[in-house]
Amino acid sequence: MNPVNLSLYLVLDPDLCGGLDGMVATTRTAVANGVTVVQLRAPQWKKRQWFDAAVALKAVLAGSGVPLVINDHVDIALAVDAEGVHVGQSDLPVAEVRRLVGPDKIVGLSTSNAAQLAAVPLALIDGGIDYIGVGPVYPTGTKKDASPVIAPADFAAMMLAKRCPAVAIGGIALGKVAPLIRAGADGVAVVSAICGQPDVAAATQALFNEITEARA
Amino acid sequence: MNPVNLSLYLVLDPDLCGGLDGMVATTRTAVANGVTVVQLRAPQWKKRQWFDAAVALKAVLAGSGVPLVINDHVDIALAVDAEGVHVGQSDLPVAEVRRLVGPDKIVGLSTSNAAQLAAVPLALIDGGIDYIGVGPVYPTGTKKDASPVIAPADFAAMMLAKRCPAVAIGGIALGKVAPLIRAGADGVAVVSAICGQPDVAAATQALFNEITEARA
Repeated sequence: MNPVNLSLYLVLDPDLCGGLDGMVATTRTAVANGVTVVQLRAPQWKKRQWFDAAVALKAVLAGSGVPLVINDHVDIALAVDAEGVHVGQSDLPVAEVRRLVGPDKIVGLSTSNAAQLAAVPLALIDGGIDYIGVGPVYPTGTKKDASPVIAPADFAAMMLAKRCPAVAIGGIALGKVAPLIRAGADGVAVVSAICGQPDVAAATQALFNEITEARA
Repeated sequence: MNPVNLSLYLVLDPDLCGGLDGMVATTRTAVANGVTVVQLRAPQWKKRQWFDAAVALKAVLAGSGVPLVINDHVDIALAVDAEGVHVGQSDLPVAEVRRLVGPDKIVGLSTSNAAQLAAVPLALIDGGIDYIGVGPVYPTGTKKDASPVIAPADFAAMMLAKRCPAVAIGGIALGKVAPLIRAGADGVAVVSAICGQPDVAAATQALFNEITEARA
């Protein structure tokens, strides 16, 4: 399993960030203030936009130690030599993703309920998947095809059942982080809690502090 | 340049074919009746659907000598070891595509006017691109974001200017093939002239015959 610090996982939304320049600026500020992973996710974009954005984000993240994870498109990840790929249940099968990117890249998989989590074969945990995304844990407006919200008790059960690191996702905002960390999440993924915030630095620091306090 | 017989190039439309089973059946019949290239193009699909369809099409085409070309998604082409990839002007840059697929795969590029054709560097013709798609040559209903129709005189000029094989595309139907071949196209790409036709075998044969007669 490739180690990844899931603590504060930023999923960039191009619209909320105000396009490519906004994504770059948001990333720079967020990484300087505690974000540990950056994911590019732009399902409405053509591949050339993905490529241009991924190249720009790689440059911003160079030397930071923060990995760039590409949502869905393994070809973009390969083209820019991104550190990771994140796929959902309707994307390429994880075993294919791992075969394409090789052993050293981070591979994440979304799971939306206990059944999807249970369906992940142990063989993938041992060689295919480095972490799972679990959500939505709250109602979300930034993912059009989101699954039903996972109830707190069900989320807690998934955290007990999981056999690899997990990041919670979906509608996570300041003040809603601590219960997830206490239930066993290794980190939280946010979109609108950072993208489009009037003060990205302060928003990121506040989220980071909530994670740290919940772990104490 | 990897050689490719562009004569009768089928671009599969999942809706017109009636889903995956229809695409497989259409492909089997079309290849038996003269189609020389099969492209999978499903911009509305998620990657898992692409993958499943590409696996099925590879199986149908096995041993036929007809290459499977994947539109846009290099990761799908790599995952199923397809014979080629076709990209448009808004997709991954051709040089990146070639780097990802290696020297032995077919790479095609769409060009919609003389300026786009002229913008293709000779270096790409020598090492990146195996053929260009040129169109739309007629009004088309199967591509939502199609460019303006290329006038016949402009198409003829592009056929004189081209430095690699070219397949014409866009609204091509029976009776509209011959002028394109006579203007210098190495083949014609069709969608609705085969996909969804009541008699796919007869439709394919008739197109094949029009190509053959135009070349005589």
